[in-house]
Amino acid sequence: MNLAELPTPSLVLDVARVRRNAARMSERVKNMGARLRPHIKTHKCVQVARLQTTAQAAALTVSTLAEAAWFAARGFTDLTYAVPIEPGKFAAAIELARDCERLALITDELEIPAQLNAAARAANVRLELFLKVDCGYHRCGVEPHTKEAREIPRRIQEASHLRFAGLLTHAGHSYHSRTLDELQRIAAHERDALVEFAAALRRENIPVPIVSIGSTPTISTVEHLAGVDEARPGNYIFFDAFQATLGSCSFEDCALTVLSAVVHRDASRSKIVIDAGAIALSKDRGAVEFDETCGYGRVLDLDGNDLALRVGSLSQEHGIIEVADAALFAQLKVGTRLRILANHSCLTAAQHPHYNILEDGRIVDRWQIQRGW
Amino acid sequence: MNLAELPTPSLVLDVARVRRNAARMSERVKNMGARLRPHIKTHKCVQVARLQTTAQAAALTVSTLAEAAWFAARGFTDLTYAVPIEPGKFAAAIELARDCERLALITDELEIPAQLNAAARAANVRLELFLKVDCGYHRCGVEPHTKEAREIPRRIQEASHLRFAGLLTHAGHSYHSRTLDELQRIAAHERDALVEFAAALRRENIPVPIVSIGSTPTISTVEHLAGVDEARPGNYIFFDAFQATLGSCSFEDCALTVLSAVVHRDASRSKIVIDAGAIALSKDRGAVEFDETCGYGRVLDLDGNDLALRVGSLSQEHGIIEVADAALFAQLKVGTRLRILANHSCLTAAQHPHYNILEDGRIVDRWQIQRGW
Repeated sequence: MNLAELPTPSLVLDVARVRRNAARMSERVKNMGARLRPHIKTHKCVQVARLQTTAQAAALTVSTLAEAAWFAARGFTDLTYAVPIEPGKFAAAIELARDCERLALITDELEIPAQLNAAARAANVRLELFLKVDCGYHRCGVEPHTKEAREIPRRIQEASHLRFAGLLTHAGHSYHSRTLDELQRIAAHERDALVEFAAALRRENIPVPIVSIGSTPTISTVEHLAGVDEARPGNYIFFDAFQATLGSCSFEDCALTVLSAVVHRDASRSKIVIDAGAIALSKDRGAVEFDETCGYGRVLDLDGNDLALRVGSLSQEHGIIEVADAALFAQLKVGTRLRILANHSCLTAAQHPHYNILEDGRIVDRWQIQRGW
Repeated sequence: MNLAELPTPSLVLDVARVRRNAARMSERVKNMGARLRPHIKTHKCVQVARLQTTAQAAALTVSTLAEAAWFAARGFTDLTYAVPIEPGKFAAAIELARDCERLALITDELEIPAQLNAAARAANVRLELFLKVDCGYHRCGVEPHTKEAREIPRRIQEASHLRFAGLLTHAGHSYHSRTLDELQRIAAHERDALVEFAAALRRENIPVPIVSIGSTPTISTVEHLAGVDEARPGNYIFFDAFQATLGSCSFEDCALTVLSAVVHRDASRSKIVIDAGAIALSKDRGAVEFDETCGYGRVLDLDGNDLALRVGSLSQEHGIIEVADAALFAQLKVGTRLRILANHSCLTAAQHPHYNILEDGRIVDRWQIQRGW
């Protein structure tokens, strides 16, 4: 099928770029002596997970238990669920653990080891549990210097039906780096904070099987991974306008666009409207702190050439694009197909039921996206 | 099932409020002498459409052809697709028209009547086509004073396989009203601009079968609908924090919340993290222009009491809430269930696969949401 024959709006995935992004990150992490455990929250798609685990362990990170169940049922049975576990999800996690070779959970809460252990014991299951560490992002996790940071691993270790999996962190604050230098400082700190904390625990006779770190910006720019066991970047598989603005990749690495159609044009206001709105693109502002003009996505033609336009505002099924260039405006008739390079590929992908796979200029396949919780 | 037993995050719909909102709007529009053609983009759910068309014609407005197909297959065969039609969707619209008693499309483009007529003639189908009018929102539509505003109805009228359905507008700029007075001025103008334009066309011997207007803020506050045939509000069925802030409703009218669980707490930063993030809530800022502190949703307890907290920031599966009150913070353990009243119910609903129906304090049913395009 030709790209122009797809219904609009729909997701278009450039599979050559996905393969290239996958190969580069796999090689990069391998060369630095760590294992890659990609975060599949970006794509939620089994075929993409297969591409990104080519020639390596089929180990994944997931953001929901629904993703865990979907991937486990399709052969990915070595999973880390990287949102802190809470009691309302114990039963579902325990059921899933029975279907997995290894399902690791994370916690940063003093009370959770005893509560989870009671549930695991009652179910006669043994669960892996990481300590979630805060390396500066301040979203979740305990800071290494706190009492809890020592006490939680001890409680996990002592629990009959838990196994202390190690330390896990995510330097999400890397997304706000102003310079490559700042980004690399955050990347070094993400690594060093965990490696040093692991060493301190080991000196206290607490074995730390795995040191797990990762975000796409930090793993893309960190200078080495000495002492790190596994890296968990996710966005790198598609990249997006935000990552390219931040410097994690080039715009030519970005694999995900939204095909849309011009549905309205207004010469007096030099604007067009497309049928990709807030649902099709998501309302993520992306790199707005670095680029005030980023809007809700860059506008490309069918071949992927940047038209130097932005989706300026969104309503549910409408995207509004200012077109100051009169010659370009004249070409953009109602019905013209455009591709929108979204700000944040993870959120845009999650708005759609499937990827349309673009290869050598043709749509060759359709891959399902597993949404929901 | 008890509310607290639902998986998190998930949508909770207070069906008594839905029924009350439906009845009020139906009665209001009927009393003003117009017909209600509710916009189902807010809910995308057949059961909700049935509630909102109780004791009236089962006529609906839709925002996508996928919605049109879904509802047509379930007995709703009088539909208006209220996004301007473009040539790439002609074939799908014509197929749908065969399954409908009446499928009306809209246009604001001079070239479309001839193009659509050619397609309709080739398919031997007769299509209804509205002129989309701009009454001040400036998103889509032609302004009544322009040459196109006279020429497009004429071209539709002359086309062998089209029928001129009338005039259709949407005062989306009402969402930015600062005062009730301003809102009522916009509502009066939405009505008057179309009624006067219809009169002018009729004087030129162009019959205007239907004058169709509507947005939830304007139809909720307009003083009369003389000369208007149908009203197309949508959001009123659920309302949301934005509409309550704007004055279209009270907070007690808001029917849609997202059930979520506390997954992290940080006493040193007086914050908690819930498992409803950017996907579960959408990143709509809602009424931020009226209420800078609106964040991404208001935080309610399980009974729906407002805790005077806001979801301050979002990542994909995390929502961050500052909790300054130490006594309240102490109650919000990991695992506590909270309900988030989202800023914009249309966008939040579209993030989920189904509604969990809350009635008399219990979850009594689950209703499917038809997403996609």
